[in-house]
Amino acid sequence: VKVEIITIGDELLDGTRVDTNTAYLGSRLAALGAEIVRATTVPDSAEAVRDAIERALEAADLVVVTGGLGPTADDRTKEVAARLQGRRLVLDEEILARVREHFEGRGARMPEVNVAQAMIPEGARAIENRVGTAPGLVLEHGDGLLVLLPGVPSEMKPMVDGYLVPFLEGRGLRRTWEERLLRTTGLAESEIAERIGPVVKRLARTDVAYLPATTGVDLRITARGGTRKEAAKAADRALDVIAAKLDPYVYARGGESLEEVVAYLLVMARRSVAVAESCTGGRLGWLLTRVPGSSEYFAGGVVAYSNDLKRRLLGVRAATLKTAGAVSQEVAIEMARGVRAKARADYGVAITGIAGPGGGSPEKPVGLVYVAVHWDGGELSVEHRFGGGRDGVRERAAQAALELLRRVLLGIADD
Amino acid sequence: VKVEIITIGDELLDGTRVDTNTAYLGSRLAALGAEIVRATTVPDSAEAVRDAIERALEAADLVVVTGGLGPTADDRTKEVAARLQGRRLVLDEEILARVREHFEGRGARMPEVNVAQAMIPEGARAIENRVGTAPGLVLEHGDGLLVLLPGVPSEMKPMVDGYLVPFLEGRGLRRTWEERLLRTTGLAESEIAERIGPVVKRLARTDVAYLPATTGVDLRITARGGTRKEAAKAADRALDVIAAKLDPYVYARGGESLEEVVAYLLVMARRSVAVAESCTGGRLGWLLTRVPGSSEYFAGGVVAYSNDLKRRLLGVRAATLKTAGAVSQEVAIEMARGVRAKARADYGVAITGIAGPGGGSPEKPVGLVYVAVHWDGGELSVEHRFGGGRDGVRERAAQAALELLRRVLLGIADD
Repeated sequence: VKVEIITIGDELLDGTRVDTNTAYLGSRLAALGAEIVRATTVPDSAEAVRDAIERALEAADLVVVTGGLGPTADDRTKEVAARLQGRRLVLDEEILARVREHFEGRGARMPEVNVAQAMIPEGARAIENRVGTAPGLVLEHGDGLLVLLPGVPSEMKPMVDGYLVPFLEGRGLRRTWEERLLRTTGLAESEIAERIGPVVKRLARTDVAYLPATTGVDLRITARGGTRKEAAKAADRALDVIAAKLDPYVYARGGESLEEVVAYLLVMARRSVAVAESCTGGRLGWLLTRVPGSSEYFAGGVVAYSNDLKRRLLGVRAATLKTAGAVSQEVAIEMARGVRAKARADYGVAITGIAGPGGGSPEKPVGLVYVAVHWDGGELSVEHRFGGGRDGVRERAAQAALELLRRVLLGIADD
Repeated sequence: VKVEIITIGDELLDGTRVDTNTAYLGSRLAALGAEIVRATTVPDSAEAVRDAIERALEAADLVVVTGGLGPTADDRTKEVAARLQGRRLVLDEEILARVREHFEGRGARMPEVNVAQAMIPEGARAIENRVGTAPGLVLEHGDGLLVLLPGVPSEMKPMVDGYLVPFLEGRGLRRTWEERLLRTTGLAESEIAERIGPVVKRLARTDVAYLPATTGVDLRITARGGTRKEAAKAADRALDVIAAKLDPYVYARGGESLEEVVAYLLVMARRSVAVAESCTGGRLGWLLTRVPGSSEYFAGGVVAYSNDLKRRLLGVRAATLKTAGAVSQEVAIEMARGVRAKARADYGVAITGIAGPGGGSPEKPVGLVYVAVHWDGGELSVEHRFGGGRDGVRERAAQAALELLRRVLLGIADD
């Protein structure tokens, strides 16, 4: 199946926004075995949109368009698509009711302009928008398909995963390859390459892609086979071989985030955690509470920026602050102990560091971070030196604290 | 000047990489007053590249291509471009010497395959690559220009800023338009459209683009004029007219984030803030500490997830928790008051709400959030009903708390 992706928006062409929709759609559709033959970005102009759709329908069996479905005057995609196919726009009462509900659920009146969102080309199938107001649309076009989706990624993605992919699978789109994800933190891309390079070379019909991010490197393993089953076997084998080389830096085999893994371990062990943060300002608490049901294991946290609060809220001793300094192993451990006691939690996790750009010194440079875990019967802390600017240091620090907690929970921290 | 951007690479279409080159080139060229009429991404196939370049040269005066300049067999851009123009590829001794140097500078011998990088279409101008080995190329095409650049962003960007932009300025590309940004929070895109629609219609030669995000809607105002000065005047006038219609929802005229605006107001007033968070888990603290030098105004925070911690760390009364419930106006205010006292700050800001997916009830549904500010001589709280999933609710809640603080600091909160 040949696919063309069309994204619409002046902001994508003048550089105000980076287009991430194409990559998202591309990965989902390529995963079904589709061949993406072209991606085109056009401005918010009815002529440009019409021209692009017309040309795409000639070259591809499936054309997916994102953007231009909003309620305002520069949103013209539906109109253009309808006219191209000689269909009228008709009011869909069900969609109108949902849009109205969307506003009323927020205690607001639906602005009249939103009626436009319930106008759809005759004969089109609507895809429900659970996040925003503009529905997606599927239009048959000869033997081909034209799919219109909202441009806002948080609205578009659920429609792709919840509707479009199953719909295409139902039409017989199948794949003969399998993908596995391995998530690591604490190793640089080049360190990973050194460790796994030789074994990867020996794996037949298997590719490994490095996906580095601030908080770690993901590895995407793709194996091909005669059938999907064969591919799955090969992918699982490759996963085992590679994971063994990267132990203990692998925190997930699959898509789970580090906070989800830690949450799972805490819930399984019926243990709770409390956090004491300095330079990260609340990020560790934010991460630990991203997981639904986090009240089961998350007791609470203290953001103690000043020495005064470290003393008063966390019980860090004045003498420790004076002799070791606020950014030190000792203070990290006292913070962890203090918040654990304060919140009556099983584990206390703490972070203290220098995020920069100011505040560094030759002995304690910007990027120096201590993370610590305190629990009944033990305490551990690790020194890190991070780069990547203020937010980069802070994101890495929170990730390192989670990782230390993961290893403590698994009993593999004392390496 | 009409521009088309072409990016080449299988990895951009199958979602392995997000194409950021288009946005970079778009922003640089739009800043010169060029109109980006289309962007196209094609796979590493000579036919697809030729087809895209040919079509682009028909529609645009300037065609910029990135990718396909490497030394390997799937890098075909130069060959395709040369053939399109009926030119031969010739060896450029200067480039060959530079590529050889590039390797020898690293103590390596140049692989033979790299000779291909010194082959350029006859008559082409080369752009030096100071980072990698593939030179950029400028080819005249009738009255138009065809520019070939490497696909690796770190190699492409210096060529754009160091060569292409000055080169185009030398050819008289100037801009006669100006842009302004207006940032709002608390109004839906459609509510904004209703408020400003009529005045926008009356503005001549001025466009307004809506850029919605989870935490608010940005408006980009673009005004054109005979000269850039005229355009700037028109843009400023439009900005004033539109901002007046959206008062008090506008928090920035320019690129500042809401946390930067709040930080600025606090520093100017020499006031400090402390935060008490429940459902947001630390996000408000994280945001307030994103700004360098935040220790000047940020005292600290408490993440009080449980009722027990709300009582013990923040002094929320058991009676209030019992009668009003943890998610209530009353508790939000007591949390703000409590953290203010605890951290000895000038302002206390609090958030309590139900982020979901569980925990909702008919009276207190998922998405219900109270934000509150307490200060010497006053207290205020606001009820919100947010959508957008767990993280969406939490991001909106933190933004709403910052916004309430901003209005309190400006003395415009009691509307």
